[in-house]
Amino acid sequence: MLRVTRRHPVLHLRADGGTRRRADTLAGEEPLEIRLGGVPWSVTMRTPGGDFDLVAGFLVSEGVVWDADQLASLAYGPGVNPDGTPSYNVVDVRLAPGVRGPDPAQARHVYTSSSCGICGTASIEAVARASRFSVEDDPVRVPLPELLALPDRLREGQQVFASTGAVHAAALFSVDDDGAARLLCLREDVGRHNAVDKVVGWALREGRLPLAGTVLQVSGRASFELVQKARMAGVPVLAAVSGPSALSVDLAHEAGMTLVGFSRGDGLNVYAGQEQIVEGPRRTVAGLSAPAGSRHATAQPRGGS
Amino acid sequence: MLRVTRRHPVLHLRADGGTRRRADTLAGEEPLEIRLGGVPWSVTMRTPGGDFDLVAGFLVSEGVVWDADQLASLAYGPGVNPDGTPSYNVVDVRLAPGVRGPDPAQARHVYTSSSCGICGTASIEAVARASRFSVEDDPVRVPLPELLALPDRLREGQQVFASTGAVHAAALFSVDDDGAARLLCLREDVGRHNAVDKVVGWALREGRLPLAGTVLQVSGRASFELVQKARMAGVPVLAAVSGPSALSVDLAHEAGMTLVGFSRGDGLNVYAGQEQIVEGPRRTVAGLSAPAGSRHATAQPRGGS
Repeated sequence: MLRVTRRHPVLHLRADGGTRRRADTLAGEEPLEIRLGGVPWSVTMRTPGGDFDLVAGFLVSEGVVWDADQLASLAYGPGVNPDGTPSYNVVDVRLAPGVRGPDPAQARHVYTSSSCGICGTASIEAVARASRFSVEDDPVRVPLPELLALPDRLREGQQVFASTGAVHAAALFSVDDDGAARLLCLREDVGRHNAVDKVVGWALREGRLPLAGTVLQVSGRASFELVQKARMAGVPVLAAVSGPSALSVDLAHEAGMTLVGFSRGDGLNVYAGQEQIVEGPRRTVAGLSAPAGSRHATAQPRGGS
Repeated sequence: MLRVTRRHPVLHLRADGGTRRRADTLAGEEPLEIRLGGVPWSVTMRTPGGDFDLVAGFLVSEGVVWDADQLASLAYGPGVNPDGTPSYNVVDVRLAPGVRGPDPAQARHVYTSSSCGICGTASIEAVARASRFSVEDDPVRVPLPELLALPDRLREGQQVFASTGAVHAAALFSVDDDGAARLLCLREDVGRHNAVDKVVGWALREGRLPLAGTVLQVSGRASFELVQKARMAGVPVLAAVSGPSALSVDLAHEAGMTLVGFSRGDGLNVYAGQEQIVEGPRRTVAGLSAPAGSRHATAQPRGGS
């Protein structure tokens, strides 16, 4: 099988003149070709491991499947390395009878509409059309202390990051009745999108979609595509360590999702859906989830920095 | 025109219970559809601005063009926002007569070969086949102090990052005869790959390809695709703030490039091509660029951590 990491000699040079040769652990990266019924569909560069989850999650993100029964089979396809060993770089998907494959005319992530052409608004509308699940009115309430702890818990669970310092991760948490966040699944990959697809694909294959009542914590930024992936899987709360883009905030608003950015342990920013974040670890949240501006006399007006 | 950034109200929640509502600056993100002779070819999510450079650089990365004369024209195509204004989200490329478009059967970044199918080795060979330039034997010698200073110089030049804290960047430097690194071009984008494409496209349109004697400093990891982009543009030295993947190191070795990772001001790691990094800011480098292991009695054996 392909390796998740590999040792490689590296020369470390210091500003003070120090020089050290040592072995460094590198994250694996290999192409993965996804075939649908034997026909090449998409190629992604990914860290080997969890390939079937990656493919299944990608199919969810693209709106092709939303239930495990829609996948008839996932199998490694042909392909060998130069030394003749199997490459494990082709996964062939067979959809169940009656399941419609992706529209070949549909560009990934952007679906033009005759009314407005290609723009962010059209992209958001297309995600809404493609999604089978609603995340609006999800009853989940996440205590702020639990939410603030997720980046550390993500980092603690990152085995590949611990050895390489250079991979992204996504972790899915459920929120228990007492408000405690419980880790369901954590995946790592050189690609941010792949890490999320691996988590979503795991959930699909476990029969857990839609992912109501969960929080997805990711290691990097919250791009449009990451919000899209969470939305397509029915995740109500997405939290990122870095910031969101303007379009990802728009998509979160439209979808009724909670979008958190710059989550750094001692604080975080809420860009959408603040009502799902509550002050403490208790189940009764009435009165605690009103907009903060209405509760705090010190709240600053918009436009303040 | 589309905006590079946008102000948006955000709720900042602190672990100590502090709450503040303020306006946050978000990085713009919009889809861009690239058309070749009017036919849709690719869609990318990007930060608006430098769109023609982005498209030109993407064409270089894909091996379609390597000289400005191969581009007959770049123009915004049709497409309007919901309010009727032009969307500026479609760029139509006309290639010069005789220039061959991309092979439609060729998946992006991975080109299967009959001998070995899809694997990292095939990907590396495909990049070598597609490239018009060699970066081997590039005479550039980068003084270590100059190289260590590039991440700070990248950050200083990041106007969008300064306001949003959440975009990637790529900066191209030339190395003067006295060893000083001079900034040629800096571009930002929500996508790491886009930032590099914008720099490469700028260089193409300025008639500067191949980019011999330059260093490309990027803000994130060094993935296979980033090394590929540098290789296709003839950049001999790629430096990343975070780490490289195993395949990106392999590609750098095969291409004869210098690949630097974890460049953090006080030190950096050299994964390939250490001979192009010299100790001080002087032109005569004979004897200074030998492998460090041969010069330092304290050098550790491989396998040490």
